[in-house]
Amino acid sequence: MSVIDELLTNNAAFAANPETRDLPSAPAKRLAIVACMDARLDPYEVLGLTIGDAHVIRNAGGVITDDEIRSLAISQHLLGTEEIMLIHHTDCGMLKVSNDEFHQLLENHSGERPGWHTMSFSDIEWSVRDSIERIKASPFIPRTDAVRGFIFDVHTGRLAEVN
Amino acid sequence: MSVIDELLTNNAAFAANPETRDLPSAPAKRLAIVACMDARLDPYEVLGLTIGDAHVIRNAGGVITDDEIRSLAISQHLLGTEEIMLIHHTDCGMLKVSNDEFHQLLENHSGERPGWHTMSFSDIEWSVRDSIERIKASPFIPRTDAVRGFIFDVHTGRLAEVN
Repeated sequence: MSVIDELLTNNAAFAANPETRDLPSAPAKRLAIVACMDARLDPYEVLGLTIGDAHVIRNAGGVITDDEIRSLAISQHLLGTEEIMLIHHTDCGMLKVSNDEFHQLLENHSGERPGWHTMSFSDIEWSVRDSIERIKASPFIPRTDAVRGFIFDVHTGRLAEVN
Repeated sequence: MSVIDELLTNNAAFAANPETRDLPSAPAKRLAIVACMDARLDPYEVLGLTIGDAHVIRNAGGVITDDEIRSLAISQHLLGTEEIMLIHHTDCGMLKVSNDEFHQLLENHSGERPGWHTMSFSDIEWSVRDSIERIKASPFIPRTDAVRGFIFDVHTGRLAEVN
């Protein structure tokens, strides 16, 4: 049985519990989170969130590219969110490879280099600040007075704010 | 107290429980999920996932742009994932606005139109299939034999596969 088939069995159990149905599409806490895709970071557990509370946007690193600006613009303009919480984390894969190294690896496998940047970084705090600045610099994100960035420590489970 | 401050209080409670610490960075189920950011879709609850199981990539719609290809390339090449599960959902905000309408709304607010496409769609199944095709067409995603797409029904809680 593939992993996906196993998860579909879990989904049948989830669907049997009707508690979390028919919520409004607008996030109850008017919050959008941008976090790394890392398997050790479950934003719901780490923040005590429940279904319906927040938009959750995730990618490798928790960085801000055009696609996160697109998602945040939709989140604020169409679904009323007001605060943005960025979450990077310690021991991130993005600390362990340079853009040139990853492009070379992809070229070795595929014969091509991607048109996109790897968005890797050597300093987590720098990357959090860079992400905040990218959001504040975008003309398409109307509410930027409550954009805050954090580093999740995968060892202690604690969030530390980047000021 | 802002919502973010409230969540930081929750995080202190999470950090007091050491059960989910020091897991490996490579996802235990060798799975990457790409899902919509929607507040009603918590992939962990819906699929019975726990911390450490999977990469979770999310954006408005659960669609595939260059940034999701970047994240999936990192997931497979650097962290060993093999299966990809795409999750769109019913009642998605991406069904309710056209690219032209959203660009016009942004221009009305900011005086500028974005360089990116809104990635909205009028047919969820079409968008799931389009996302699968974008992954299979990328030279940077080496394992595409287990890419499967689903629609999450926000009313019933069930996932339905798009074939």
